[in-house]
Amino acid sequence: MQEIIGGITAPAGFQAAGIAAGIKKEGKDMAMLCSEVPCQLAGTFTTNVVKAAPVKWDSRIVHEFHRARACVMNSGIANACTGQEGMDACRAVARKAAGLLHMKEDEVLTASTGVIGRQLPLDVMEKGIEQMVPLLSHSREAGTLAALSIMTTDTRKKEVAVSFELGGKAVTIGGMSKGAGMIHPNMCTMLAFLTTDAAISADMLQKALSGCVNESFNMISVDGDTSTNDTCLLFANGLAGNPEITDEGVDYDIFCEALGYVTKYLARHMAADGEGATALLEVKVVGAESHEQAVTLAKSVITSNLVKTAIAGHDANWGRVLCAMGYSGADFDPEKVDLYFESAAGKLKIIENGVDTGYSEETATKILSEKEITVTADIRMGNESATAWGCDLTHGYIRINADYRS
Amino acid sequence: MQEIIGGITAPAGFQAAGIAAGIKKEGKDMAMLCSEVPCQLAGTFTTNVVKAAPVKWDSRIVHEFHRARACVMNSGIANACTGQEGMDACRAVARKAAGLLHMKEDEVLTASTGVIGRQLPLDVMEKGIEQMVPLLSHSREAGTLAALSIMTTDTRKKEVAVSFELGGKAVTIGGMSKGAGMIHPNMCTMLAFLTTDAAISADMLQKALSGCVNESFNMISVDGDTSTNDTCLLFANGLAGNPEITDEGVDYDIFCEALGYVTKYLARHMAADGEGATALLEVKVVGAESHEQAVTLAKSVITSNLVKTAIAGHDANWGRVLCAMGYSGADFDPEKVDLYFESAAGKLKIIENGVDTGYSEETATKILSEKEITVTADIRMGNESATAWGCDLTHGYIRINADYRS
Repeated sequence: MQEIIGGITAPAGFQAAGIAAGIKKEGKDMAMLCSEVPCQLAGTFTTNVVKAAPVKWDSRIVHEFHRARACVMNSGIANACTGQEGMDACRAVARKAAGLLHMKEDEVLTASTGVIGRQLPLDVMEKGIEQMVPLLSHSREAGTLAALSIMTTDTRKKEVAVSFELGGKAVTIGGMSKGAGMIHPNMCTMLAFLTTDAAISADMLQKALSGCVNESFNMISVDGDTSTNDTCLLFANGLAGNPEITDEGVDYDIFCEALGYVTKYLARHMAADGEGATALLEVKVVGAESHEQAVTLAKSVITSNLVKTAIAGHDANWGRVLCAMGYSGADFDPEKVDLYFESAAGKLKIIENGVDTGYSEETATKILSEKEITVTADIRMGNESATAWGCDLTHGYIRINADYRS
Repeated sequence: MQEIIGGITAPAGFQAAGIAAGIKKEGKDMAMLCSEVPCQLAGTFTTNVVKAAPVKWDSRIVHEFHRARACVMNSGIANACTGQEGMDACRAVARKAAGLLHMKEDEVLTASTGVIGRQLPLDVMEKGIEQMVPLLSHSREAGTLAALSIMTTDTRKKEVAVSFELGGKAVTIGGMSKGAGMIHPNMCTMLAFLTTDAAISADMLQKALSGCVNESFNMISVDGDTSTNDTCLLFANGLAGNPEITDEGVDYDIFCEALGYVTKYLARHMAADGEGATALLEVKVVGAESHEQAVTLAKSVITSNLVKTAIAGHDANWGRVLCAMGYSGADFDPEKVDLYFESAAGKLKIIENGVDTGYSEETATKILSEKEITVTADIRMGNESATAWGCDLTHGYIRINADYRS
């Protein structure tokens, strides 16, 4: 498997477009993804009780039909808490695109991100769709335009593609995602669109996606707020011509490994681009009794405001890490914990058996001043581990969110 | 029952002192509380797996003996994650005070708050105790000095006292607390010391305290971080001469009402003085099926970084409130929710049946620009309710916490 340059248009048969339709005050705000042929479809969605209209629209299609061909995305307005009018808007958007693309409205998904509670401007959206259809292209640039168009407070586009072999055929997976705030595991707050030309059955596709999402998007947090709009969709159009994956086995494992690379890549980049973030915080819990225990502990640390502000201040305030592990709900013996801080500037053992090693604060500060920081907690109870990703909490986060709607 | 001026020295027979011993770089950092006669003792402590040494010291005394006479408090260093050396320090502090006060070391509690992971400077502490013993006083000022000495990032002292009658005798409850960061329900991150001259058995005292803590300190959050040091102690010395409360009944109810006033007062003032806070955020969930459901929903809203930053920006971004309710884990129908924003500037219905009422943004901003804001969510499922308190999330929080140890 190798990483290649590109995104959602990298696999055979996928086209995309992205434009400034006028939903936001400025910048690109609409995108489209379309496959030349029908796709197997898998998806995971927010666990929030408050589900945005497009989440309801898409999850019905994922769960009832397992198939789709296109998706219309917008940023600026989330179409959440919009009642029946919001559901009607999803259908109108899907119908408009379906008419121009010669498919059924149930083959068109929709995805929205932005302010909650406002209705979509349907006339603007419909004109945007008319504008995008002739622009749909297989080019790498078209994929990038789509990745740019779904951004809200993101400062960088997130796209990636990998290439690998299945049954002697070259297969590609591409992906893009957005999300910098209201980001918290389960399903983490975000939109992600994944494409592949692999031939794979709908149930194996869903299984692969659910597994990969749990170890990637569900392991990141920016601010602990689980959004109403979280959506991750995976389209598989089969154009690579590999023997169709219909069961577990070598091909499925290869596919999952590649998909895992793509989802972890996107997840890490979302955490690193968290609102106001200046550093990516990777937290590894090792030596756990169970994977679940490791997940609980790792997530608690990346979610702690006090850990996040300490990272912002390059301050080796390790007590906050231990404290966050302590209130996570998972059991462990604080007096058996070893803790390490690591980055491009080096690696330092900070505590051993739960107490200070007498490490150099100067060296610790140097390590914590890098752009990517790894905190490893060894709880010495077993052999399981988990990794979670977050970011520091800075003035930038406050600036962005105290005044988001103005 | 009436509120009176004063704090922990308001009830008969309680003395206090507070000094600058030199644990912190500057300011008062040690306090002492002492009762003339032995007290019944109740306490609640952090649920964090990582428990500070004084939490272990005190909880043993609370659970084994239910009696104590004095407490030595310090700010600056939390004595958490300090291993055996930390436990030895608790004993040494208690022994030093016990010697000078002519009591047993098991009658002296200790409480610490500040940086995690550092050892207490025992020589400084012991000199501080020697200095405080002759200063112990029944005066109101002595209580206030103690309240000032336990502050860390608090900007205001928190103390209160109430007077009421039990069996024809005047009874008083006094209290002080500290806490502005690492504040999150269960047991919320803080130190609180309550005194009363009521005669009440140890088991009824513990029952009253546990009930009141659940509806006050456990209903506030500043940053979602549950501390290693949370401690709430209640001393009852019986000097009021009322018929001893040994069972539920009218006297117990009167006592609980007064105690509830004191704990809620302190809890509200801690939330309002949250690190960097410019506004107190009160969240009421009404119309719930169960109290537990209401508690879960209310706590989720006060804990949301996105709700807190919206309040900081005086922004009626109600979608974030609904979103936080949605991921709380409690079930409800988003399309039946009515939401109100209220403050000294007025009251506004923001959403009805889950959608925007078309309210005036200008009026909403005016309401959200006050110092105390109440958000009420009516979920129209039953008659239960709960109230939680938090604060806005501002640049001040980042400033305080990105650089706390320097």
